[in-house]
Amino acid sequence: MINKLIEKIQKTQAPIVVGLDPMLKYVPEYIQKKAYAEFGETLEGAAEAIWQYNKGIVDAVYDLIPAVKPQVAMYEQFGIPGMIAFKKTCDYCQEKGLVVIGDIKRGDIGSTSEAYAIGHLGKAKVGANPIAGFSEDFVTVNPYLGSDGVKPFIKVCQEEKKGIFVLVKTSNPSSGEFQDRVVDGRPLYELVGEKVAEWGSECMGDSYSYVGAVVGATYPEQGKILRKIMPKTFILVPGYGAQGGKGADLVHFFNEDGLGAIINSSRGIIAAYQQEAYASYGETGYADASRAAVIAMKEDIAQALANR
Amino acid sequence: MINKLIEKIQKTQAPIVVGLDPMLKYVPEYIQKKAYAEFGETLEGAAEAIWQYNKGIVDAVYDLIPAVKPQVAMYEQFGIPGMIAFKKTCDYCQEKGLVVIGDIKRGDIGSTSEAYAIGHLGKAKVGANPIAGFSEDFVTVNPYLGSDGVKPFIKVCQEEKKGIFVLVKTSNPSSGEFQDRVVDGRPLYELVGEKVAEWGSECMGDSYSYVGAVVGATYPEQGKILRKIMPKTFILVPGYGAQGGKGADLVHFFNEDGLGAIINSSRGIIAAYQQEAYASYGETGYADASRAAVIAMKEDIAQALANR
Repeated sequence: MINKLIEKIQKTQAPIVVGLDPMLKYVPEYIQKKAYAEFGETLEGAAEAIWQYNKGIVDAVYDLIPAVKPQVAMYEQFGIPGMIAFKKTCDYCQEKGLVVIGDIKRGDIGSTSEAYAIGHLGKAKVGANPIAGFSEDFVTVNPYLGSDGVKPFIKVCQEEKKGIFVLVKTSNPSSGEFQDRVVDGRPLYELVGEKVAEWGSECMGDSYSYVGAVVGATYPEQGKILRKIMPKTFILVPGYGAQGGKGADLVHFFNEDGLGAIINSSRGIIAAYQQEAYASYGETGYADASRAAVIAMKEDIAQALANR
Repeated sequence: MINKLIEKIQKTQAPIVVGLDPMLKYVPEYIQKKAYAEFGETLEGAAEAIWQYNKGIVDAVYDLIPAVKPQVAMYEQFGIPGMIAFKKTCDYCQEKGLVVIGDIKRGDIGSTSEAYAIGHLGKAKVGANPIAGFSEDFVTVNPYLGSDGVKPFIKVCQEEKKGIFVLVKTSNPSSGEFQDRVVDGRPLYELVGEKVAEWGSECMGDSYSYVGAVVGATYPEQGKILRKIMPKTFILVPGYGAQGGKGADLVHFFNEDGLGAIINSSRGIIAAYQQEAYASYGETGYADASRAAVIAMKEDIAQALANR
């Protein structure tokens, strides 16, 4: 799957992933109204609204980008109907040829991590039938529990030719509270990065490992160091746009080959129509506004890479 | 909710939580067969099997215990039907008067943690309606992202009078890989424990905080230290039984008042009939075997506390 992701990045010339993190406040009113008219102001209504909203965006941008990253929390908050919308979104994106990175940040001890891995990347054995519950191509994984929380994901990835991105240095303001604490003279995130490189070294695609890392765009200096510590690791970079990361901050996340990183933007793309720059699209043009925002983001990154 | 948990612990005289972590290999064949006869060897069939299995156990033990802890991964692996079984299990346990601790180990950046908190402990606002997606009483939370990943959970707990248990030192063999790394002369888990105590100090029930901690039974020495660092923190202790923790290891997790800890056993209770000690119950007596195992566990812990 890492090979497919790289191939698609090269084809689209866009190391970009669109975060499908639908909050109801982003969903145009006319879409919400229609959904509530059909399903009431219920979880089903909310799930229908975010699904229709997602579909509009995906239809508008799928030819420009290699991948999407649905954030499962935004669906899970609407209970079972929300989880159905999550699955529907993942399946639809795969039909459109997109690589789907499930931003699930799961992580637990051995057999429990295995269950998560099976649920999201693999197949559960029911009687004689192997069946996929959800089926993303990659998922994000939390490393706090150590190797035996991560390795079950790797095992399923090997079997299913899928991949993971392990949290190393997250994009949020308080990520340093534990991740930056100094251990043996170096911050904890470097040790986690080393582990990711170690786990990944036995999981190589053609040029990069299918054990990737998450490093926030909001920490470019740390990204520069982690790029060196994990040369064969693909880095998923959240925090561009709404969270404050800019194209120029991102160049050091990439290797000399122009690969090695994929930049996520969520709100900046999916709620572009709510920004001043794209306000002229209006509510009904929200999907076209997203398309314009993808094109602008692509240019911003290409320019930054050209100028480095 | 922490007050309710403590009240129920005192009433049952059992600081015990039963982990409802149903793997299909634990589910008696006759239950699986019946479920597959009705729903086929499908995710729906698997979900029906684990739900019926859970129901049998809950019916057999609910009067002996204060709480249950369903591990969501074991349901999530069966996709949407699995999540429906998770919700059904949580709801049924609450009907039976049990406190439900959702072992979800979620954790993300601000608005995303908020969505998880809303989904599992709070209510999503859909139009004018606040609606609960899932509705546990407590959930477990991963601290790797720092304060702004944890605080949204606390906010929802304050609004809804619910609680969380934050991972501090987990029970698995490789938990030390990052959690034990020495920072300023002390292991990281102590710093996390201090943060938990700090977050918890502003979230007090009558005698304990509703911001709790997870510390594995398999690390009794660390438990002793953490007990002192977090005097007002309730500790959820996994790892008893199948993972190797014994009653005698657990005494230091408790305060002098006999409170402050709740010990989880999953496999040791729910799959008791597969152990030699309870083999005489047979498959059809699996729920009675679970009841006997709860009684034995209760005695083991009571004896250990009496002997300290």
